[in-house]
Amino acid sequence: MLTSGGCPKNMLSIKDALEALEGKWKLLILFALSGGPKRFKQISAEVGGITDKVLSKELKALEANQLIRRQVYDTFPPTVEYAITPHGLSLEKVMEELHYWGLSHRKQIIGK
Amino acid sequence: MLTSGGCPKNMLSIKDALEALEGKWKLLILFALSGGPKRFKQISAEVGGITDKVLSKELKALEANQLIRRQVYDTFPPTVEYAITPHGLSLEKVMEELHYWGLSHRKQIIGK
Repeated sequence: MLTSGGCPKNMLSIKDALEALEGKWKLLILFALSGGPKRFKQISAEVGGITDKVLSKELKALEANQLIRRQVYDTFPPTVEYAITPHGLSLEKVMEELHYWGLSHRKQIIGK
Repeated sequence: MLTSGGCPKNMLSIKDALEALEGKWKLLILFALSGGPKRFKQISAEVGGITDKVLSKELKALEANQLIRRQVYDTFPPTVEYAITPHGLSLEKVMEELHYWGLSHRKQIIGK
Protein backbone atom coordinates (compact mmCIF):
# COMPACT_ATOMS: atom_id res chain seq x y z
CA MET A 1 0.00 0.00 0.00
CA LEU A 2 1.07 3.53 -0.76
CA THR A 3 1.48 4.70 2.78
CA SER A 4 3.63 1.80 4.00
CA GLY A 5 6.88 3.25 5.17
CA GLY A 6 5.88 6.85 4.49
CA CYS A 7 8.19 7.01 1.45
CA PRO A 8 9.80 10.48 1.14
CA LYS A 9 9.04 10.64 -2.60
CA ASN A 10 5.33 10.24 -1.92
CA MET A 11 5.65 12.84 0.83
CA LEU A 12 6.77 15.36 -1.83
CA SER A 13 3.71 14.89 -4.03
CA ILE A 14 1.40 15.14 -1.03
CA LYS A 15 3.21 18.36 -0.07
CA ASP A 16 2.64 19.72 -3.59
CA ALA A 17 -1.05 18.87 -3.36
CA LEU A 18 -1.48 20.37 0.10
CA GLU A 19 0.26 23.55 -0.97
CA ALA A 20 -2.11 24.05 -3.90
CA LEU A 21 -5.15 23.27 -1.72
CA GLU A 22 -3.87 25.00 1.41
CA GLY A 23 -6.40 26.43 3.85
CA LYS A 24 -9.93 25.41 4.66
CA TRP A 25 -11.67 27.07 1.72
CA LYS A 26 -10.18 26.02 -1.61
CA LEU A 27 -11.65 22.53 -1.78
CA LEU A 28 -15.04 23.84 -0.66
CA ILE A 29 -14.99 26.47 -3.41
CA LEU A 30 -14.02 23.84 -5.97
CA PHE A 31 -16.75 21.59 -4.67
CA ALA A 32 -19.31 24.38 -5.08
CA LEU A 33 -18.10 24.97 -8.65
CA SER A 34 -18.18 21.28 -9.51
CA GLY A 35 -21.93 21.76 -9.94
CA GLY A 36 -21.42 24.32 -12.72
CA PRO A 37 -20.13 27.91 -13.21
CA LYS A 38 -21.23 30.36 -10.53
CA ARG A 39 -21.05 34.04 -9.68
CA PHE A 40 -19.13 35.42 -6.71
CA LYS A 41 -22.19 35.84 -4.50
CA GLN A 42 -23.46 32.35 -5.29
CA ILE A 43 -20.13 30.79 -4.33
CA SER A 44 -20.08 32.82 -1.13
CA ALA A 45 -23.59 31.62 -0.18
CA GLU A 46 -22.86 27.96 -0.94
CA VAL A 47 -19.55 27.80 0.87
CA GLY A 48 -20.90 29.76 3.84
CA GLY A 49 -19.00 31.64 6.53
CA ILE A 50 -16.38 33.10 4.18
CA THR A 51 -15.76 36.85 3.94
CA ASP A 52 -15.68 38.56 0.53
CA LYS A 53 -12.06 39.52 1.04
CA VAL A 54 -10.96 35.95 1.72
CA LEU A 55 -13.10 34.51 -1.08
CA SER A 56 -11.61 36.97 -3.52
CA LYS A 57 -8.08 35.98 -2.43
CA GLU A 58 -8.88 32.28 -2.67
CA LEU A 59 -10.38 32.63 -6.14
CA LYS A 60 -7.22 34.37 -7.35
CA ALA A 61 -5.03 31.59 -5.91
CA LEU A 62 -7.22 28.90 -7.51
CA GLU A 63 -6.98 30.71 -10.84
CA ALA A 64 -3.19 30.94 -10.56
CA ASN A 65 -3.08 27.17 -10.05
CA GLN A 66 -5.32 26.68 -13.11
CA LEU A 67 -8.01 25.05 -11.02
CA ILE A 68 -10.71 27.56 -11.97
CA ARG A 69 -11.27 30.05 -14.78
CA ARG A 70 -12.71 33.56 -14.45
CA GLN A 71 -15.11 34.33 -17.28
CA VAL A 72 -16.22 37.88 -18.03
CA TYR A 73 -19.33 38.27 -20.19
CA ASP A 74 -19.90 41.40 -22.22
CA THR A 75 -23.26 42.30 -20.72
CA PHE A 76 -24.32 45.56 -19.13
CA PRO A 77 -23.19 45.60 -16.39
CA PRO A 78 -20.51 42.98 -17.14
CA THR A 79 -21.19 39.54 -15.68
CA VAL A 80 -18.37 37.58 -14.06
CA GLU A 81 -18.56 33.84 -13.54
CA TYR A 82 -16.12 31.33 -12.15
CA ALA A 83 -15.87 27.85 -13.66
CA ILE A 84 -13.91 24.79 -12.62
CA THR A 85 -11.25 23.66 -15.14
CA PRO A 86 -10.54 20.05 -16.15
CA HIS A 87 -7.53 20.21 -13.83
CA GLY A 88 -9.80 21.31 -10.99
CA LEU A 89 -12.24 18.55 -11.81
CA SER A 90 -9.40 16.06 -11.51
CA LEU A 91 -9.68 16.65 -7.75
CA GLU A 92 -12.99 14.82 -7.78
CA LYS A 93 -11.58 11.66 -6.22
CA VAL A 94 -9.85 13.63 -3.48
CA MET A 95 -13.14 15.38 -2.68
CA GLU A 96 -14.99 12.08 -2.77
CA GLU A 97 -12.58 10.44 -0.33
CA LEU A 98 -12.67 13.50 1.94
CA HIS A 99 -16.45 13.35 1.88
CA TYR A 100 -16.54 9.69 2.93
CA TRP A 101 -13.87 10.24 5.55
CA GLY A 102 -15.70 13.31 6.89
CA LEU A 103 -18.79 11.17 7.38
CA SER A 104 -16.90 8.51 9.30
CA HIS A 105 -15.03 11.15 11.31
CA ARG A 106 -18.30 12.75 12.37
CA LYS A 107 -19.52 9.36 13.59
CA GLN A 108 -16.25 8.65 15.38
CA ILE A 109 -15.70 12.00 17.09
CA ILE A 110 -18.82 14.06 17.10
CA GLY A 111 -20.97 10.97 17.72
CA LYS A 112 -23.14 11.17 14.59
CA MET B 1 -21.04 11.40 -9.44
CA LEU B 2 -20.64 12.78 -5.98
CA THR B 3 -19.68 16.28 -6.95
CA SER B 4 -22.50 16.91 -9.43
CA GLY B 5 -24.47 19.83 -8.16
CA GLY B 6 -22.22 20.45 -5.17
CA CYS B 7 -24.88 19.06 -2.79
CA PRO B 8 -24.89 21.02 0.52
CA LYS B 9 -25.01 17.80 2.57
CA ASN B 10 -21.79 16.59 1.00
CA MET B 11 -20.34 20.05 1.59
CA LEU B 12 -20.86 19.54 5.33
CA SER B 13 -18.89 16.30 5.50
CA ILE B 14 -16.07 17.80 3.45
CA LYS B 15 -16.06 20.74 5.89
CA ASP B 16 -15.80 18.30 8.81
CA ALA B 17 -12.88 16.55 7.16
CA LEU B 18 -11.07 19.77 6.29
CA GLU B 19 -11.49 21.06 9.81
CA ALA B 20 -9.90 17.95 11.32
CA LEU B 21 -7.06 18.03 8.77
CA GLU B 22 -6.71 21.82 8.66
CA GLY B 23 -3.33 23.33 7.83
CA LYS B 24 -0.48 22.03 5.74
CA TRP B 25 1.07 19.69 8.32
CA LYS B 26 -1.46 17.23 9.71
CA LEU B 27 -1.69 14.93 6.71
CA LEU B 28 2.09 14.96 6.32
CA ILE B 29 2.52 13.94 9.97
CA LEU B 30 -0.05 11.17 9.56
CA PHE B 31 1.70 10.07 6.40
CA ALA B 32 5.03 9.87 8.25
CA LEU B 33 3.39 7.82 11.01
CA SER B 34 1.70 5.48 8.54
CA GLY B 35 5.08 3.74 8.30
CA GLY B 36 5.06 2.91 12.03
CA PRO B 37 5.32 4.65 15.44
CA LYS B 38 7.95 7.38 15.62
CA ARG B 39 9.54 9.73 18.10
CA PHE B 40 9.15 13.51 17.97
CA LYS B 41 12.52 14.15 16.34
CA GLN B 42 11.96 11.46 13.73
CA ILE B 43 8.63 12.94 12.72
CA SER B 44 10.20 16.39 12.55
CA ALA B 45 12.97 15.12 10.24
CA GLU B 46 10.62 13.22 7.94
CA VAL B 47 8.08 15.99 7.56
CA GLY B 48 10.79 18.63 7.11
CA GLY B 49 10.54 22.40 7.54
CA ILE B 50 8.31 22.28 10.61
CA THR B 51 9.29 24.01 13.88
CA ASP B 52 9.15 22.10 17.18
CA LYS B 53 6.49 24.45 18.49
CA VAL B 54 4.19 23.89 15.53
CA LEU B 55 4.81 20.13 15.47
CA SER B 56 3.96 19.92 19.15
CA LYS B 57 0.71 21.83 18.57
CA GLU B 58 -0.21 19.68 15.58
CA LEU B 59 0.43 16.45 17.47
CA LYS B 60 -1.90 17.59 20.24
CA ALA B 61 -4.64 18.44 17.75
CA LEU B 62 -4.23 15.06 16.02
CA GLU B 63 -4.44 13.32 19.37
CA ALA B 64 -7.62 15.25 20.28
CA ASN B 65 -9.16 14.04 17.03
CA GLN B 66 -8.13 10.45 17.86
CA LEU B 67 -5.97 10.27 14.75
CA ILE B 68 -2.77 9.47 16.65
CA ARG B 69 -1.90 8.10 20.07
CA ARG B 70 0.92 9.30 22.33
CA GLN B 71 2.68 6.38 24.00
CA VAL B 72 4.98 6.88 26.98
CA TYR B 73 7.36 4.03 27.78
CA ASP B 74 8.70 3.57 31.28
CA THR B 75 12.39 3.70 30.38
CA PHE B 76 15.04 5.96 31.80
CA PRO B 77 14.73 8.61 30.56
CA PRO B 78 11.09 8.01 29.52
CA THR B 79 10.56 7.35 25.82
CA VAL B 80 7.66 8.97 24.01
CA GLU B 81 6.38 7.65 20.71
CA TYR B 82 3.51 8.69 18.48
CA ALA B 83 1.47 6.06 16.64
CA ILE B 84 -1.30 6.37 14.08
CA THR B 85 -4.69 5.01 15.22
CA PRO B 86 -7.07 2.90 13.09
CA HIS B 87 -9.10 6.09 12.61
CA GLY B 88 -5.97 7.87 11.38
CA LEU B 89 -5.18 4.98 9.06
CA SER B 90 -8.66 5.32 7.58
CA LEU B 91 -7.28 8.44 5.87
CA GLU B 92 -5.15 6.24 3.65
CA LYS B 93 -7.37 6.67 0.60
CA VAL B 94 -7.41 10.44 1.03
CA MET B 95 -3.60 10.44 1.20
CA GLU B 96 -3.40 8.14 -1.82
CA GLU B 97 -5.64 10.38 -3.91
CA LEU B 98 -3.75 13.48 -2.78
CA HIS B 99 -0.50 11.77 -3.76
CA TYR B 100 -1.74 10.96 -7.28
CA TRP B 101 -3.21 14.40 -7.69
CA GLY B 102 0.00 16.02 -6.43
CA LEU B 103 1.92 14.18 -9.14
CA SER B 104 -0.44 15.34 -11.88
CA HIS B 105 -0.50 18.88 -10.48
CA ARG B 106 3.29 19.04 -10.58
CA LYS B 107 3.20 18.01 -14.24
CA GLN B 108 0.46 20.51 -15.06
CA ILE B 109 1.77 23.57 -13.23
CA ILE B 110 5.38 23.16 -12.35
CA GLY B 111 6.08 21.45 -15.68
CA LYS B 112 7.30 18.07 -14.33
